[in-house]
Amino acid sequence: MMSLSVDHLVGIKELSKEDIELIFQTADNFKSVINRPIKKVPSLRDITIANLFFENSTRTRLSFELAEKRLSADVVNFSAASSSVKKGETLIDTVNNILAMKVDMVVMRHPNPGAAKFLSENVDSRIVNAGDGAHEHPTQALLDSYSIRESLGSVKGKKVVIVGDITHSRVALSNIFCLQMQGAEVMVCGPATLIPKYIHDLGVKVEHNLRKALEWCDVANMLRIQLERMDVKYFPSIREYTMLYGLDKAFLDSLSKKIIVMHPGPINRGVEITSDVADSDQAIILDQVENGVAVRMAVIYLLAQKIKREE
Amino acid sequence: MMSLSVDHLVGIKELSKEDIELIFQTADNFKSVINRPIKKVPSLRDITIANLFFENSTRTRLSFELAEKRLSADVVNFSAASSSVKKGETLIDTVNNILAMKVDMVVMRHPNPGAAKFLSENVDSRIVNAGDGAHEHPTQALLDSYSIRESLGSVKGKKVVIVGDITHSRVALSNIFCLQMQGAEVMVCGPATLIPKYIHDLGVKVEHNLRKALEWCDVANMLRIQLERMDVKYFPSIREYTMLYGLDKAFLDSLSKKIIVMHPGPINRGVEITSDVADSDQAIILDQVENGVAVRMAVIYLLAQKIKREE
Amino acid sequence: MMSLSVDHLVGIKELSKEDIELIFQTADNFKSVINRPIKKVPSLRDITIANLFFENSTRTRLSFELAEKRLSADVVNFSAASSSVKKGETLIDTVNNILAMKVDMVVMRHPNPGAAKFLSENVDSRIVNAGDGAHEHPTQALLDSYSIRESLGSVKGKKVVIVGDITHSRVALSNIFCLQMQGAEVMVCGPATLIPKYIHDLGVKVEHNLRKALEWCDVANMLRIQLERMDVKYFPSIREYTMLYGLDKAFLDSLSKKIIVMHPGPINRGVEITSDVADSDQAIILDQVENGVAVRMAVIYLLAQKIKREE
Repeated sequence: MMSLSVDHLVGIKELSKEDIELIFQTADNFKSVINRPIKKVPSLRDITIANLFFENSTRTRLSFELAEKRLSADVVNFSAASSSVKKGETLIDTVNNILAMKVDMVVMRHPNPGAAKFLSENVDSRIVNAGDGAHEHPTQALLDSYSIRESLGSVKGKKVVIVGDITHSRVALSNIFCLQMQGAEVMVCGPATLIPKYIHDLGVKVEHNLRKALEWCDVANMLRIQLERMDVKYFPSIREYTMLYGLDKAFLDSLSKKIIVMHPGPINRGVEITSDVADSDQAIILDQVENGVAVRMAVIYLLAQKIKREE
Repeated sequence: MMSLSVDHLVGIKELSKEDIELIFQTADNFKSVINRPIKKVPSLRDITIANLFFENSTRTRLSFELAEKRLSADVVNFSAASSSVKKGETLIDTVNNILAMKVDMVVMRHPNPGAAKFLSENVDSRIVNAGDGAHEHPTQALLDSYSIRESLGSVKGKKVVIVGDITHSRVALSNIFCLQMQGAEVMVCGPATLIPKYIHDLGVKVEHNLRKALEWCDVANMLRIQLERMDVKYFPSIREYTMLYGLDKAFLDSLSKKIIVMHPGPINRGVEITSDVADSDQAIILDQVENGVAVRMAVIYLLAQKIKREE
Repeated sequence: MMSLSVDHLVGIKELSKEDIELIFQTADNFKSVINRPIKKVPSLRDITIANLFFENSTRTRLSFELAEKRLSADVVNFSAASSSVKKGETLIDTVNNILAMKVDMVVMRHPNPGAAKFLSENVDSRIVNAGDGAHEHPTQALLDSYSIRESLGSVKGKKVVIVGDITHSRVALSNIFCLQMQGAEVMVCGPATLIPKYIHDLGVKVEHNLRKALEWCDVANMLRIQLERMDVKYFPSIREYTMLYGLDKAFLDSLSKKIIVMHPGPINRGVEITSDVADSDQAIILDQVENGVAVRMAVIYLLAQKIKREE
């Protein structure tokens, strides 16, 4: 049986092309599992997983929790609000304490870029990065690519534009790595204030005009405007952003070919995309959510197999 | 086998008399289950239920969660404090996201009247209303009627007075519908400021004098004074409310017949009822709590049977 | 089969020496369970446990929750933030409501000293005290003694010094009772402002000089400075506390014999002990955490056996 080349899922950057393909093939199986009347498999009955969320999250935490429970793992949740972190304990101490209670895997969201990598190098456990600041969000990128592969047959050779706030987005960075590794062409599109200067070095096209970007692409990933992450304002107003970078149905219909519309959620309806775009048959937003559970089951299952082989 | 006429439990108003009887007969079975050493049945092993509480709640959430776990359903909890709701997502989007993760049933408490009905019409899932603003709280009304039936043999022909803040109470409204459907006579009693004007249209008697109300009834349901729901003060002081509408042991003993005392909890001891009333053998307050688990097991079980039949 | 002399674990004071020995022998078995690939036993499949935490806690709540799940108990969690306590309900009513839902055991942390004892005398359930104000924290003391027994073969005849804030520490008080019952000699060490006057009556030595205390002892339990529990300042500054009562590696190495270093966590690295002490092979801090799960499994298992025998 094949296995992952890594012991942790810290970022897409650490994965090989073969790892991604293995995750997708495994996710294919789990997607059929979660669409059966009995949505569970007994695979990880002997595994305990701690979800450590140092930032609030609904959908990601719920998606991981469901993935874990459907693999029959034992699950404990831990959120920063009620944690010892406030009492001055270090991250390594917090995690080592949890591991001393015989927890096998840690799924962590943390506001600091690099937190997951740091942890993977300093504690004796499997770490799954569920988002580390503006750095990486690897399972989101994997589910996005998986959803493109499902809609278009493959990722290779496809043209994908990521629209919005690229600078503050861990979704953008992980997607760029993941898409390029599979042979897609990637463009970013947004106001110049929200495109980081290093982006050219990643081999990514930059386009400030939304119509040109959408005419070029097969898939548009419309990022969320996360005002809560911006210290200063990067554009004059939401209304101006929407005028220049929002997508409505008339715009979508005016394009010369049918593109696929993605969104990592939660949607600000009327900001990045209008309601009729979100609910159109070109949008695969809810497929992304469904695939998220299957892809996370695959990642957790494959990392757990490596624990079992060690024993 | 019989089945419910509805696909959701949005309110008592949508139920038939036969639905209520079916729920009670099913609850009889589950009440014996939760009084056995092994309090669980494997019925809903293949069902995933999300508890969505947009308002804080201890007893209702705990009662639902225990009901679900004793049916062996998989349970995920979601509370507004850590949710995407703050990020501007619509209720339908939030719920559709959760459903895309292959959740079969949603138990929801929401501050807006009509939220459960709106959701049942707009998403493809079974919805159980666990309280929508001041509108309905159907499982509370069902467990109240079930507890009367258990104490007095039947609800039909019984006289029930609901005492307190009728205007702001979803418990009162659901109880009125539920009791009348089963052939009980209903009276409300409280200060005029807390009795809504439309109440006569519901075929309900109104009485402002507590002694007259209690002499008339077989059962008194003493509502909680929910100061947290009142924007302005509807009575001069708690002390004055208690003097006019509070029930102590001497008052209870002075009545010409033994009545049953109910309370939906949490009790403000010394406000609606004194401690010796709450702890007397005429009070069935803890039976209500126990029956709540059995009735909720019945509601969830019966709605789940309809999902299974569809498949 | 032997059984505990108590129906609740309210404090160490209520236990006999034989109770402690039975808990430790049972914990030996569970420690081997949690170090197997399958870390669970089916023993308490028919038991429902509610964790009631009226104060925030990461490690204690998580440790209890894992202990309960590894015994296959059904677990419901309840935290004060979302509770009816704010609505004016009494503690007894809150707990009786939970028990009416057929919960068999309550694990409670509460800010008020005596809360667990009060509850054990007033409700019909097994109570496990997970910390009541500055009074007792019996499972912490049990896991501390268990860890000493594991490292040194036995507790009897050993010399243990507890260093730090004795006045505000439930860990200190429970440890003093527990260690003395097993025949250890106990000393406390700290600034005079943090040593309660009644401490001599407990048969405990007092020493204000850390070097003298450490030269005397076999084991040093370095308590956490809990600034969050102090209404006024009991020492001039953290830096001054550390200078007089902090332990670094050079100090540890300068002692005439090798002592064992314990800490109940969370550690303020650089305050009570430096990082190289926390990570040295004389520290058994993570063993304490691991043993915490085994000891809590033992306590819960033994109390549950008494429920079963009654039935």
